[in-house]
Amino acid sequence: MTLSDALSSVDAGLDAALARLGAWVAIPSVSADPAHASDCRAGANWLATDLKSIGFEVEVVETRGHPIVVARRARADAPRALFYGHYDVQPADQPQAWRTPPFEMTVVQDPVHGQILVGRGTSDDKGQVMTFVEACRALVETDGVIPLDITMVIEGEEETGSPNLSTFLENRRDALQVDMVLACDTDMAAIDVPGITVSMRGVIHDEFVLNCARHDLHSGVYGGAARNPLHVVATVIAALHQESGHIAIPGFYDGAEAFALSDVDDDDGSFLRDIGLTTSVGEPGVSPRQQTLFRPSVDINGIWGGYSGVGSKTVIPSQAGAKVSFRLIPGQDPSTVRDRFRAFVRSLLPPDCTVTFHGTGAGSVAMRIESDFAIVERTSVALEAEWGHKTEMIATGGTIPAVSEIKRLFGLQTLMVGFSHEDDRQHGTNEKFDLRSFHKGIRSWLRILHALA
Amino acid sequence: MTLSDALSSVDAGLDAALARLGAWVAIPSVSADPAHASDCRAGANWLATDLKSIGFEVEVVETRGHPIVVARRARADAPRALFYGHYDVQPADQPQAWRTPPFEMTVVQDPVHGQILVGRGTSDDKGQVMTFVEACRALVETDGVIPLDITMVIEGEEETGSPNLSTFLENRRDALQVDMVLACDTDMAAIDVPGITVSMRGVIHDEFVLNCARHDLHSGVYGGAARNPLHVVATVIAALHQESGHIAIPGFYDGAEAFALSDVDDDDGSFLRDIGLTTSVGEPGVSPRQQTLFRPSVDINGIWGGYSGVGSKTVIPSQAGAKVSFRLIPGQDPSTVRDRFRAFVRSLLPPDCTVTFHGTGAGSVAMRIESDFAIVERTSVALEAEWGHKTEMIATGGTIPAVSEIKRLFGLQTLMVGFSHEDDRQHGTNEKFDLRSFHKGIRSWLRILHALA
Repeated sequence: MTLSDALSSVDAGLDAALARLGAWVAIPSVSADPAHASDCRAGANWLATDLKSIGFEVEVVETRGHPIVVARRARADAPRALFYGHYDVQPADQPQAWRTPPFEMTVVQDPVHGQILVGRGTSDDKGQVMTFVEACRALVETDGVIPLDITMVIEGEEETGSPNLSTFLENRRDALQVDMVLACDTDMAAIDVPGITVSMRGVIHDEFVLNCARHDLHSGVYGGAARNPLHVVATVIAALHQESGHIAIPGFYDGAEAFALSDVDDDDGSFLRDIGLTTSVGEPGVSPRQQTLFRPSVDINGIWGGYSGVGSKTVIPSQAGAKVSFRLIPGQDPSTVRDRFRAFVRSLLPPDCTVTFHGTGAGSVAMRIESDFAIVERTSVALEAEWGHKTEMIATGGTIPAVSEIKRLFGLQTLMVGFSHEDDRQHGTNEKFDLRSFHKGIRSWLRILHALA
Repeated sequence: MTLSDALSSVDAGLDAALARLGAWVAIPSVSADPAHASDCRAGANWLATDLKSIGFEVEVVETRGHPIVVARRARADAPRALFYGHYDVQPADQPQAWRTPPFEMTVVQDPVHGQILVGRGTSDDKGQVMTFVEACRALVETDGVIPLDITMVIEGEEETGSPNLSTFLENRRDALQVDMVLACDTDMAAIDVPGITVSMRGVIHDEFVLNCARHDLHSGVYGGAARNPLHVVATVIAALHQESGHIAIPGFYDGAEAFALSDVDDDDGSFLRDIGLTTSVGEPGVSPRQQTLFRPSVDINGIWGGYSGVGSKTVIPSQAGAKVSFRLIPGQDPSTVRDRFRAFVRSLLPPDCTVTFHGTGAGSVAMRIESDFAIVERTSVALEAEWGHKTEMIATGGTIPAVSEIKRLFGLQTLMVGFSHEDDRQHGTNEKFDLRSFHKGIRSWLRILHALA
């Protein structure tokens, strides 16, 4: 059979592929929330069953957290490829802000993107994983073979920083001796313009909780004299940035290596305008896009404390807290950044206020793919054949911890090809994946698998 | 029958009185939360039924919010007294931080206070209202008469600023032509030292919500360039206070009248130490107690935004908000303070950030009882007879909006006698009321009613 037969088979089978993706999206495999632990397992099992149906030998490997799906379809005398993805998704809190139920994949007509698939995980990362799985299925069903020896590692903790992936990779070091690593968890360069991601920021999370009085207080009795931890939280957060947009934590930039891809478009304003904003909060003279791709950042991801229900309550809470995450660039060590942040918070504490920190995970260093990475050229050509546009080398401001770990442990670079768009609202409400990305993404992997064989 | 017979009847009937209070506390009449609207009505109806059983003519008056219980036991040729209290309670959020279920009144042994009644509303204000009701019951059951013509007005919205009380009072102006006003919603001077409250701070609430991007964002994609409303909330709150502890809102102190009771004890450190604190956040040279009684304050009562569940979520939220309340002193107009606060917030807004305000209620001005208030002396003597200590003239940093409104509309001062303590955790978790306060509070009202007849 020819490549063109397999491509036709993808076109003919698109509705069935969408039904499979919808079934997987319907499982709320939210890794951050322990209440969804059994859903994570169900998400792993769903994939395991599907991969068995197309001839993979599958194992659902236990970890200290959510299980990892490992699937192999061996082929003698073919190069061995490891494919990485994840079945876990971000929480879908604020359900009232979703226009459709988050775990019910819905096809919606979008004025810019045409038909889009709306639902938690459609883009990050179930929909992207399925572009690869469906490509394998098409080859199995038309040719009966896949031209590479494929091992899939689909984890369930990417959205919480992959805390158990390193141990897994170390334990399986011998079984994971591969020739190349592929991943599908990144964006395209633009609509219809394929991209290979060669630069990625790192990440480190932390959480701090401040305690003041022994118990919650009535502001009528203590207001004006008693320390309010909500005020202290605010003071700490307000001090994180200088007016210039630089981060004010002493030593934060130590060792950070200036780096930028020269061919990243300068911003024409649309990057922020598309999300309703006009002005970058970043460093002077750095475009918003360069800022988010090649400069480190810190964001508060949540604050809590006191009463946030309906109406008023004149309470001075005894406790307040915040979640924080840093995006890092090459040269910044995640645990050093966290240590410096903690010292910074401690340096700002007033009397009668104690802090505890609850960060989990060791974080991930930033990554750069070296320019002599051999399979990039063949993949570029395959992508160009599918999309009709030259493949661009792109950067992401996000993080795939697995890519850092695979490099650290196995010395292998990862070929990062993805079909999502930066307006997919991956961690927000109404996450979507273009139907075009899903369909042509499957076709793209078909072409890439042929090209790499 | 003599006063002493009625006092003995109180002692003999204490268990039954506790059972009645427990039944009322069991109704979660949380006025701030619309989900508890029917519980508020049930709380009103419970009291109405109880008052009918001791010969009051009772009406449950509808308002635009929760109903008001109006009960009269007329008596010809006796002075007319209006008694004010409230049946609504603060929310009991953080149920896991309560050592006993909040709406199950539990008797606990306390090392300082002896037996205490733990539960939401035991102190604020159901337990205090019942000291007056039980005194009336003892008189009705022993004498068959109460020596005054009593009208009780027990509202259901004190904890949300009494938004509908003024309209009610204006509508009933003719029916509420009384000679004196009594209230039981304040503290004692100290354990076993009775107090009459002659100074009270005012209050005004507000809430602000900030919006930045059109939807929640992924910090991997936008972190470093996109405006984060949690950072802006923090900036606003951090700017509320000067380093000196003074409030930084322009014009905030305009018109505020310096005032202090000379006989308020200077702080020996115990006021803050009792709640686990050492250092006042107030103005230099002002003791913590004077600060909370005679100086205005601002406290953030809640902040929300982003993800505050278990684990991490690298979201840049599109929205964040905070609740704020001000305590005021004489000369400060609540709505002017709110206007100045709003102008202050607006003045701090960066680009790409809009604000909406959601404050409810017109607030309450601060109050001072004039020293020629005739019934104070007779009440002091009655209280001293019960407690064995001289009655002190005291101040509260809290607010009873009804007291301000009754003065404004009817020109009447309110005699504020109460039996709670400042460590009763009225708006916090594990709210309590001393059993001794409940028991001797009933006896105190018996003596006061006799003294005022």
